[in-house]
Amino acid sequence: MKLVRYGNPGEEKPGLVDNNGRIRDLAAHVADIGGATLGRETLDRLRALDPAKLPLVPEGVRLGSPVSRPWSFIAVGLNYADHARETGQEIPSEPILFNKLGNSICGPNDDVIYPKNADRMDWELEIAFVIGKRARYVEEKDAMDYVAGFAVCNDVSERRFQMKRNGQWMKGKCAETFGPLGPWLVTADEIDPSNLAMELKVNGETRQKGSTSTMIFSIPYLVAYITQFCVLEAGDVVTTGTPPGVGSGMKPPQYLKAGDVMELTIEGLGTQRQRVIPFPG
Amino acid sequence: MKLVRYGNPGEEKPGLVDNNGRIRDLAAHVADIGGATLGRETLDRLRALDPAKLPLVPEGVRLGSPVSRPWSFIAVGLNYADHARETGQEIPSEPILFNKLGNSICGPNDDVIYPKNADRMDWELEIAFVIGKRARYVEEKDAMDYVAGFAVCNDVSERRFQMKRNGQWMKGKCAETFGPLGPWLVTADEIDPSNLAMELKVNGETRQKGSTSTMIFSIPYLVAYITQFCVLEAGDVVTTGTPPGVGSGMKPPQYLKAGDVMELTIEGLGTQRQRVIPFPG
Repeated sequence: MKLVRYGNPGEEKPGLVDNNGRIRDLAAHVADIGGATLGRETLDRLRALDPAKLPLVPEGVRLGSPVSRPWSFIAVGLNYADHARETGQEIPSEPILFNKLGNSICGPNDDVIYPKNADRMDWELEIAFVIGKRARYVEEKDAMDYVAGFAVCNDVSERRFQMKRNGQWMKGKCAETFGPLGPWLVTADEIDPSNLAMELKVNGETRQKGSTSTMIFSIPYLVAYITQFCVLEAGDVVTTGTPPGVGSGMKPPQYLKAGDVMELTIEGLGTQRQRVIPFPG
Repeated sequence: MKLVRYGNPGEEKPGLVDNNGRIRDLAAHVADIGGATLGRETLDRLRALDPAKLPLVPEGVRLGSPVSRPWSFIAVGLNYADHARETGQEIPSEPILFNKLGNSICGPNDDVIYPKNADRMDWELEIAFVIGKRARYVEEKDAMDYVAGFAVCNDVSERRFQMKRNGQWMKGKCAETFGPLGPWLVTADEIDPSNLAMELKVNGETRQKGSTSTMIFSIPYLVAYITQFCVLEAGDVVTTGTPPGVGSGMKPPQYLKAGDVMELTIEGLGTQRQRVIPFPG
């Protein structure tokens, strides 16, 4: 299933994408797509519905984040060997974790806002996974039982805030709109995340091109690893690191500017597209 | 007002503490104490109630976190000059920020669970502030308009996870029960947070003794600073750093062990008390 949330910000309704790529309304069957509805039972119930019998949603509707209000939004750093090299850092011996904030997540095609006083905003194309049930000291062999599905994520970053503002990356990772997610949440039964082509373009030019197959630490490994340090709740989002080609790794470095358009695609997970806008007002 | 949430974990009800120190039930007047109820209007409405007319809650009831489900839980590092020195680090030129997780918050007197594979669990007595309305690029002069109140917080930490597990402090800061909060949320109209005595005891021996007056970056400054990097939502919790006397700063370092009892007091904000327990099972 491809689950979506559609409608105006803060008023999104649940839906799914049918075989013709049209959105069908799920509001009669589930209150929302989020922590309370991502367990196996609810997903099985939705899967049993005949999409052709669900109301069609008008085309062109805005998409929100396919997951409502994730409590935690955790990210993995330097999880592609080539990306570690381009940033001049060592390949990590164990996963680097950092936090984004749940309220930095936005719709897949929403404008990305340039923070005030920022000048080094950068892109990071990533595959994110979404937790389906509370996960605590999970073993790697059981890890996929806890994953509801996958989505494209742009781990938008401000490199000066991240690296030059006195410690801990979160300063450059948590601004509003710094986490476009979607277009869809593709449920874990439908896709193998271990070998998916990835591409990010800025203003039509390819900047990142890679495959999830070159990840250093796999998604099951990450579920097991992260839940040694904290509890993941249903609806939480973990974004798993970016392949080579970020702006700060280019020579000379190239950062986003207002008006730029990012387009991010992962095979099977769809495409998201954001315009960069200056801070409003 | 001193606001509390009381009852079994996950079933807490809202209450307030009357002048005799007894808890009065607020369930007829507000659904919960959290993001949706910490705005000025709701607090003014609760303040207008006559506590003597509210139902008395039986004594000895468990207290939960005085704030329900904070979306973000942000912490400030090295915000007391003496504490920075005891850890061997420089006094920061601007605040160090890191993340804890909303689901690491627990009741003020709940047991603190030793994580699996941990051996350097440490205490940190802190004053936390709770956000009352959405805060985004707030100016320092307006900052207190966004603060609903204050509470004692134990920023429980695992030093090996924090410092030796490959980058970013969050690994040692986010475990379940690593954020006892309370006993009360004391509303901002009732207390000046700038000069409050603080004391933490372990097994009856004083380990931390200080005053909020020696904070490097004040609470209004922190509100302004943090909201340059991210949006704080109503109900979010920010804990503001610890005075000298943490276990890792002792010579030799002294860490918590199962059975230890921590007792944390801040003048006007009450006392919390936790027993350390081994990981269950």
